[in-house]
Amino acid sequence: MNPLMVFLTDFGTADGFAGVMKGVALSINPELKLVDLTHEVEPFDILGGALILKAHYRYFPKGTIFVAVVDPGVGTERKAVAVRTENYFFVAPMNGLLDLVLNEEKPLEVVELTNPKYRLKAVNNTFHGRDIFTPAGAYISKGIPLKELGKRIGYRRLLEFPKPKRLPKRVVGEIVYFDRFGNAVTNIPCRRFRYCTFRNLKGRYVRAFLEGDKERPNFTCGSFGFVEVFLPMGSFRDRFNPKKGEKVICHL
Amino acid sequence: MNPLMVFLTDFGTADGFAGVMKGVALSINPELKLVDLTHEVEPFDILGGALILKAHYRYFPKGTIFVAVVDPGVGTERKAVAVRTENYFFVAPMNGLLDLVLNEEKPLEVVELTNPKYRLKAVNNTFHGRDIFTPAGAYISKGIPLKELGKRIGYRRLLEFPKPKRLPKRVVGEIVYFDRFGNAVTNIPCRRFRYCTFRNLKGRYVRAFLEGDKERPNFTCGSFGFVEVFLPMGSFRDRFNPKKGEKVICHL
Amino acid sequence: MNPLMVFLTDFGTADGFAGVMKGVALSINPELKLVDLTHEVEPFDILGGALILKAHYRYFPKGTIFVAVVDPGVGTERKAVAVRTENYFFVAPMNGLLDLVLNEEKPLEVVELTNPKYRLKAVNNTFHGRDIFTPAGAYISKGIPLKELGKRIGYRRLLEFPKPKRLPKRVVGEIVYFDRFGNAVTNIPCRRFRYCTFRNLKGRYVRAFLEGDKERPNFTCGSFGFVEVFLPMGSFRDRFNPKKGEKVICHL
Repeated sequence: MNPLMVFLTDFGTADGFAGVMKGVALSINPELKLVDLTHEVEPFDILGGALILKAHYRYFPKGTIFVAVVDPGVGTERKAVAVRTENYFFVAPMNGLLDLVLNEEKPLEVVELTNPKYRLKAVNNTFHGRDIFTPAGAYISKGIPLKELGKRIGYRRLLEFPKPKRLPKRVVGEIVYFDRFGNAVTNIPCRRFRYCTFRNLKGRYVRAFLEGDKERPNFTCGSFGFVEVFLPMGSFRDRFNPKKGEKVICHL
Repeated sequence: MNPLMVFLTDFGTADGFAGVMKGVALSINPELKLVDLTHEVEPFDILGGALILKAHYRYFPKGTIFVAVVDPGVGTERKAVAVRTENYFFVAPMNGLLDLVLNEEKPLEVVELTNPKYRLKAVNNTFHGRDIFTPAGAYISKGIPLKELGKRIGYRRLLEFPKPKRLPKRVVGEIVYFDRFGNAVTNIPCRRFRYCTFRNLKGRYVRAFLEGDKERPNFTCGSFGFVEVFLPMGSFRDRFNPKKGEKVICHL
Repeated sequence: MNPLMVFLTDFGTADGFAGVMKGVALSINPELKLVDLTHEVEPFDILGGALILKAHYRYFPKGTIFVAVVDPGVGTERKAVAVRTENYFFVAPMNGLLDLVLNEEKPLEVVELTNPKYRLKAVNNTFHGRDIFTPAGAYISKGIPLKELGKRIGYRRLLEFPKPKRLPKRVVGEIVYFDRFGNAVTNIPCRRFRYCTFRNLKGRYVRAFLEGDKERPNFTCGSFGFVEVFLPMGSFRDRFNPKKGEKVICHL
């Protein structure tokens, strides 16, 4: 069975930055299978990248190597790391991008990627995705143990993820992400809520998009594992112009 | 030869919805080859998705499994189906998305995807692409016969695709789709027309884009198999602001 | 080791034009590995495509077959060619798209793709990417020698790529491309400059994006191999509204 490498970046797909990482990966290990989780994280949006990775990683086969690069600090003192958990490997800058996943998957081994043997020979300080992260992932796929890649360190959490407030009869959260359909993802974990509100507009908590009301915000348990606000067959974002950080309240 | 699965969705590529389906597919069958036909059908545009699928499916190898998901009714009573034709398999909601293809490829076997054994264990009613359609396609790729996936049903056509009017000396059609270059795809099947008109502007019917006139609408047989309206080295859509449904007349 | 085919086009990924080429490739050679370098070259932007290809090709394994299609002259008298270099194969229209790469990789053999045996049976003059270029690349991947694909010709350079002016103490160049982050790529090859200027604004020449100044243009050696103008954690393009062709001066 060929090893699987999965990419998550904010590089976009236009300029070849995503494509060239695959050239690097296949140069090191031609047996790799490569999958794009996304290259369209908003530029520099570490929280958005962390959410997307957390939403989807568990659907990939055991042993998958995730190369995650949203890295505004590229070339500065932030650390590049590889992390082994019970089921997966993650290669990323240690800037918060892995924090939500590593709340669920315990990090068993963390190394800083300091060994020049497992990088490209010339490292450009604007593009560690190509020159450091992808090579590290590709060498892991060939069975190189993590301890060869650099020195062992502790994982440090850095993500500023807003916590919802749990009150006796309701949960007060906020919008943290917008998806392609204009749905707003909140930080409120799914539960059987009775209804939710946005800007004092009360909306139903339904199981399927089409059960929603066309004229007001509706709420559902979305595929990120959080409550989402939506309009059926329309864009909640376009219609209500909500902002990240705006409050959503869900009632038990 | 590894089985091939091809995706067509309106999920976009930003949020990980497209990527996670590949994780699901490879978890079920690691031997699969995966190809994206598109994930950028306009949200909820069943007609657009049907056109894109019809334009391209026949260029894929025999045995290809298409997983097509443009599914505004996800989680409601619309049926999820798998279809076997002489050459291919199609997995999709039965909402019209397959209608244009199945006008060309006769459906030999249609089943409703009701067997929980061939879904993910937890099904979220906002994301059957991940939880029902992709697993069904992946199990088909492993040789599971369609009849195992659910009960046999008849295929029901639901697409509202406008028919062109065939008159003795001309065909009257309309614009049904815009492509990335701003070309307008019509519903008029290609023939050797003498010329066509749009908004009373007469334009040449040419064989190659660069043969067109830079100042007026031109017409050609595009790769969707229909007459297209275009500007050479420019965007017909940006220049003339045409709408879907606007009339195009082609003269024999 | 499976052969590798890499695509660079301006087809976008929405309409299925990119996806269908993969169907064609795998129909001819099911063993192919397929990678997208980009499908989002600006429509008809041969210079942009040439730059992206030149920036990234050398990171792919020896023997990789590049299928590059930015082809405003499709269906007209421009020649379709396959080129063999010491390390790679390139299939493309001979319209300048390969010029920057072939300044670095000497063309050892160039043929015009005239043999109908190695095209699709029906060739649509709006889509040679599908009907001529991809089949040629796929047959090359099966070991068909170039001389079978058509008659040998000389490679003709056609790209209008602006040359920077090298003066004793400085290099005068211009902006030739914008990337996804709003960085402006110039035509000035990387060197150890002391500083650069844009619109009389003097900026530092730094090694990493975060070392830049937030209020003025900064300069670095980007991953295209050229000087880039950027704002740290922001978009130089959005902030200064620069145009292609605008002057950048770098001082030694």
